[in-house]
Amino acid sequence: MTKKNKMNQDYIKPDKWSIIAEGFDADQVKSSESLFSIGNGAMGQRANFEENYSGPTFQGSYIAGVYYPDKTRVGWWKNGYPEYFAKVINAPNWIGINVSINREKLDLFTCKSVSDFRRELNMKEGWYLRTFKATLPNDIEIKVEAKRFLSLEMDEIGAIAYSVTPMNSAAEILFEPYLDSGITNEDSNWDDKFWDTLSVDHQNDEAFIMTRTMKTNFHVCTFMRSQCFVNDKKVELEPEITKTETEIKFTYSVAVKQNETATIHKFGGYTVDRDHNKNELVSEAKKVLATSIKIGFNSMLEEQKIAWSKIWETADITIEGDVRAQQGIRFNIFQLNQTYLGVDSRLNIGPKGFTGEKYGGSTYWDTEAYCIPFYMATKDQEVARNLLTYRYNHLEKAIENAEKLGFSNGAALYPMVTMNGEECHNEWEITFEEIHRNGAIAFAIYNYERYTGDFKYITEKGLEVLIAIARFWFQRANFSTDKNKFVILGVTGPNEYENNVNNNFYTNYSAKWCIEYTVDCINKVKHNYPEEFNRILAKTNLKGEETYKWIKVADEMYFPYSEEHGVYLQQDGFLDKELVKVSELESSQRPINQKWSWDRILRSPYIKQADVLQGFYFFENHFSIEELERHFDFYEPFTVHESSLSPCVHSIQAAKLDRMEQAYQFYLRTSRLDLDDYNHEVDEGLHITSMAGTWMSIVEGFGGMRIKNNTLNFTPKIPKQWQAYSFKVNFRHQILTINVSHEKSTFNLSGDKELKILVNNQMVTITPNNLITV
Amino acid sequence: MTKKNKMNQDYIKPDKWSIIAEGFDADQVKSSESLFSIGNGAMGQRANFEENYSGPTFQGSYIAGVYYPDKTRVGWWKNGYPEYFAKVINAPNWIGINVSINREKLDLFTCKSVSDFRRELNMKEGWYLRTFKATLPNDIEIKVEAKRFLSLEMDEIGAIAYSVTPMNSAAEILFEPYLDSGITNEDSNWDDKFWDTLSVDHQNDEAFIMTRTMKTNFHVCTFMRSQCFVNDKKVELEPEITKTETEIKFTYSVAVKQNETATIHKFGGYTVDRDHNKNELVSEAKKVLATSIKIGFNSMLEEQKIAWSKIWETADITIEGDVRAQQGIRFNIFQLNQTYLGVDSRLNIGPKGFTGEKYGGSTYWDTEAYCIPFYMATKDQEVARNLLTYRYNHLEKAIENAEKLGFSNGAALYPMVTMNGEECHNEWEITFEEIHRNGAIAFAIYNYERYTGDFKYITEKGLEVLIAIARFWFQRANFSTDKNKFVILGVTGPNEYENNVNNNFYTNYSAKWCIEYTVDCINKVKHNYPEEFNRILAKTNLKGEETYKWIKVADEMYFPYSEEHGVYLQQDGFLDKELVKVSELESSQRPINQKWSWDRILRSPYIKQADVLQGFYFFENHFSIEELERHFDFYEPFTVHESSLSPCVHSIQAAKLDRMEQAYQFYLRTSRLDLDDYNHEVDEGLHITSMAGTWMSIVEGFGGMRIKNNTLNFTPKIPKQWQAYSFKVNFRHQILTINVSHEKSTFNLSGDKELKILVNNQMVTITPNNLITV
Repeated sequence: MTKKNKMNQDYIKPDKWSIIAEGFDADQVKSSESLFSIGNGAMGQRANFEENYSGPTFQGSYIAGVYYPDKTRVGWWKNGYPEYFAKVINAPNWIGINVSINREKLDLFTCKSVSDFRRELNMKEGWYLRTFKATLPNDIEIKVEAKRFLSLEMDEIGAIAYSVTPMNSAAEILFEPYLDSGITNEDSNWDDKFWDTLSVDHQNDEAFIMTRTMKTNFHVCTFMRSQCFVNDKKVELEPEITKTETEIKFTYSVAVKQNETATIHKFGGYTVDRDHNKNELVSEAKKVLATSIKIGFNSMLEEQKIAWSKIWETADITIEGDVRAQQGIRFNIFQLNQTYLGVDSRLNIGPKGFTGEKYGGSTYWDTEAYCIPFYMATKDQEVARNLLTYRYNHLEKAIENAEKLGFSNGAALYPMVTMNGEECHNEWEITFEEIHRNGAIAFAIYNYERYTGDFKYITEKGLEVLIAIARFWFQRANFSTDKNKFVILGVTGPNEYENNVNNNFYTNYSAKWCIEYTVDCINKVKHNYPEEFNRILAKTNLKGEETYKWIKVADEMYFPYSEEHGVYLQQDGFLDKELVKVSELESSQRPINQKWSWDRILRSPYIKQADVLQGFYFFENHFSIEELERHFDFYEPFTVHESSLSPCVHSIQAAKLDRMEQAYQFYLRTSRLDLDDYNHEVDEGLHITSMAGTWMSIVEGFGGMRIKNNTLNFTPKIPKQWQAYSFKVNFRHQILTINVSHEKSTFNLSGDKELKILVNNQMVTITPNNLITV
Repeated sequence: MTKKNKMNQDYIKPDKWSIIAEGFDADQVKSSESLFSIGNGAMGQRANFEENYSGPTFQGSYIAGVYYPDKTRVGWWKNGYPEYFAKVINAPNWIGINVSINREKLDLFTCKSVSDFRRELNMKEGWYLRTFKATLPNDIEIKVEAKRFLSLEMDEIGAIAYSVTPMNSAAEILFEPYLDSGITNEDSNWDDKFWDTLSVDHQNDEAFIMTRTMKTNFHVCTFMRSQCFVNDKKVELEPEITKTETEIKFTYSVAVKQNETATIHKFGGYTVDRDHNKNELVSEAKKVLATSIKIGFNSMLEEQKIAWSKIWETADITIEGDVRAQQGIRFNIFQLNQTYLGVDSRLNIGPKGFTGEKYGGSTYWDTEAYCIPFYMATKDQEVARNLLTYRYNHLEKAIENAEKLGFSNGAALYPMVTMNGEECHNEWEITFEEIHRNGAIAFAIYNYERYTGDFKYITEKGLEVLIAIARFWFQRANFSTDKNKFVILGVTGPNEYENNVNNNFYTNYSAKWCIEYTVDCINKVKHNYPEEFNRILAKTNLKGEETYKWIKVADEMYFPYSEEHGVYLQQDGFLDKELVKVSELESSQRPINQKWSWDRILRSPYIKQADVLQGFYFFENHFSIEELERHFDFYEPFTVHESSLSPCVHSIQAAKLDRMEQAYQFYLRTSRLDLDDYNHEVDEGLHITSMAGTWMSIVEGFGGMRIKNNTLNFTPKIPKQWQAYSFKVNFRHQILTINVSHEKSTFNLSGDKELKILVNNQMVTITPNNLITV
């Protein structure tokens, strides 16, 4: 819909720990605003300039869990539509600092010249720095340095140090820090107002805007407090205060000589009624401001470095000999941690994190299919448990959702997109048909239990979810007398470039597996946890004969198969398509989702992301390596990878097939998807959830990590472009560090228990703090 | 989405020539507003009360061809979406007359009592009458009579005679005729303003509101002029005039004694810049007002009766012995003529005519598939030619539309819904996929030429359309190496309860037929009209080898077929469905389009309207009667007939199969669909286009009329419920009247040429004005 910027491949400088861009280009501002976004799990923001900017920009500041239920209005209403479409909303602006030099407004879009413009996102320490020199229309030459971070320690606040040095004369610098709740969304289709401003207040040098979201009634206090310095020496200034109905601005005038530096430290952020009583939001803001001022910008920054170093301690992946690959994986790990830290089970991982508005809603199947393995292995297992619990807490709503669509007896259909457990996406072909999400939610329970050994989760919570999902699949399948098998009609698979298809292999296979796994769990709980079993039986009203009926469906499930090609078909009729490979498409036709009409995409053979191969990834032990190879060779040539979730799975599969060059190229594509803007859309925000797929493509792809029978397995491989790489996994409360080079692999274990692992199918016993070389 | 009124079956009194409802029921007001709608081809309006009414009402006054392009906004944009969704818009109100008796406002919703309430729509004479008695809150008892019609002679004006008689005392009657452009649509999703009011003026006793539509910039002058009477004697009164920005009101005070009658005659309507220079709309309005006033209400009404009698002269169908059936067919014929009279080739037949807002846009495939046969046989053949020309005039836009979707070389895809040749519907599964409309547009050319023998239409215009359509089908099909046939993937057939299916039999068959018919026409033109052929060749850039490629596609088209059932399948995979017949569905589940979610409908076997059977209707000579029977028996039991276009085709097919009882039931359903509100939605407006199907179900179904080799064929049958029926057809400029009873059929011909026809396959020669009995 919107005209895309040109692809910004290669303007990011390779660096091991930082994202760096040099040179000012107005055409890159929106892309850079995405790439240099910062977040701390509770809030985040695009890398918008603090000072006024009249060029093209996409303003965005976001608060975790605060959304707006935009009314669903479509050309033609279909029964069962969700009533709203959740919008990630642009929150009041607290970062703004208008700057004037001798009463001339600083605006990079109108400066006579801009030089030495540089952005750096320091991922190791968690801050963002922008520096430049500019000549203003009034011929004053200035040097500017603006550093910003959102505190991990105090996640309601961020800090900015903004310095101006006039270089060719003395000058009066006006700093005008402000708060503004008169903001809008880029994406507000119906021009609804999202925020209601309740009050605009100040006390001494602090300002507060109280707002509430329309409909959802989230109360947010946006606040700020600033201090000024000349050459790092604090100056006490009485600001002039300007207020409107939605804005408050403090004007500080700082007189400096030539080459002296005027600096403002601005502290600001949000207190939210999810965490506090709504009447105490201002007093809580005062507390956090007082603490920050007391600590001061520089000491807060030191704390920030320490907090990030703790994250990197278990999450870092090193790559030697390939700076771009190294930068890529760290960018991915950094952004994942900026988005979700696992401290609040009411939150989840939005596909764009805090970097844009697209994909309104915070929770997709991405969480279960892609993110859980990352969080499970790089954080305490409680974090993954929280993510599972999020779905457990939404079980009742998932049952209601299924009821709306005509299901009964406690069958659950989890939403495709949600903020609070309710479905909030409004395309019928997705909402009603992309039901495979239920499979991923069940798979995540299996995956978690496999990795952590925490079977208690299943007895406490997981089994109820599994039963509801099995019931759904049982009811959703129907018997085809024509095929003498159970079929699943009218679905959309992970490949969203096909809608309303019959017998999507991935969906049918997931359904079968869900039923089998659920029955397996029921039997285990029945025999080993009789008390829990009775509780669950009573709660779910499960009858013994019910499971027999389920099993019949699982046993007699139909899978479309081509004898000619020796492959399972993505869906019935796939072979009727005009099977022209992607490599034969003219590049002017790509990406097809921008160049082709929807009907043309649908009837083409082109696959958006792994679909059959996604099934081969989840259920890899059910298929031989030859089968994988055949399916990879059949499907990958038709795959356009226009979903961010595609390259990672293909990288893992290629590595498994020993196609290391291909695996490496897919790795680059997934890890640098946004940095190199493969999909021509980074201006809209980053692809956060697929970043967990990047992590998997190293750990599971190159490292070959698997869990079988409570045991870690590795089959380390290494791309020829790399000298070595290392990663760490938190396996059942011990950190295992794996280092892989072309010559050898080493394993190092923290903790106090020895660990038996399999390396290339050989048992290896690792004792803590004792480097093992294989 | 909206809560439906209860079904209003049976509140319409059976009558041969009138629609009559008695008794005041606020719950029936919206339904009656639809049923008693009036129109004259250029404008129309729902049967809203003239006086103020505070109860539930759906206000609607519509002007042919005046629409608003409502912006298309969907949850997720897909390439190729039309930019707007056309809205039929509620036009300024000119019928309003507020009435007060002794300063108490008349409002039927707040009267102490209402009795003798009666509505009559006299179809023979073309007027609508409402009478009632009421006791107002101030205890005045009055008798009211309001008669209204829209002139056929002067189609810019309508007239109202509104009389009030106080029955229990003398009274001051205030009549306040007004114009109001501050109207809104029921269906205005995005709260856009549709009308801009340019001026509100009056001169003497005339008032004018000049408006223009936003975006489309249609200029409309709404006007009125009134006269008052006491006991039919004109009284000269000076009205008080009140104006706002969007309203003008004249207040006339008439003092009458007990049982004296105060009457107002109000004349009003629209002048539109489609017919006049926009600067002359007021002067044109003055002209038409002056003429009306001069003729006067009563004489205008006499003219109206004459004009309608001329329509009925060729269009009437009589049924003896079954008043409800008689009333039904006349209602259908009447409404069709109220909607479209064929005098303006820029207009077309909207599915709701002038009776509601639904299905924004005026032109669907309904016109070609259902309406053309009716207009072709009941009016001069020029009318049908105009309807074909409408599409010819849109050919360039249809080619552009196809280009947007990736087609080339002059391939055309006509819009599914249009006002001006551009697509204006925005569901992808309809807009992009319901491509069979192209087939109906080609079929209408064939049908017209078959009926009229006017091959010149094909050389002049039709062949260009056919070539563009053949090119579309050629490009839209693709070769399936798996099936070794050409397939058409990703379509929606006439049964819109399935989307994005492969190889819809009806669509594939239409495509094959279109190609064959086009090649046939090309050859005829080539040999018989070489000059025209060269013109067309040059214009279309048609190459000889192109048609060979087309023919290959037609010859090798794939049709899904079940050997087991001996039937063509509606689409690939139809037999995978759970084949539970409609008769086994609980009635609480019906209509499924109101009770079921969309995904459930899609995967069910239930058919909205004839799909395979529609193909058997169009191409009946290609299939044996046994084949028809097998397909009817297979598909009808799964058909829910939730499209208004369904029962008529089934009635025709049942009659062909000699299943007269079933044919009769389907006839009742199609002819009384709205009168008996089968689909629980008559409050939204009438189903105009399917009314032409009702006509077909008598003429083609019971009468068995067909054209073969330039010869009319009849195989008359009669339902046992009827004593006799008659219909007329205008066949090549002569009117043939057919009268069918259980004993015999008679044929009577006007004009001066003898006509050979086939009756039950026997040749019969009919000489003009000579009754032939068979």
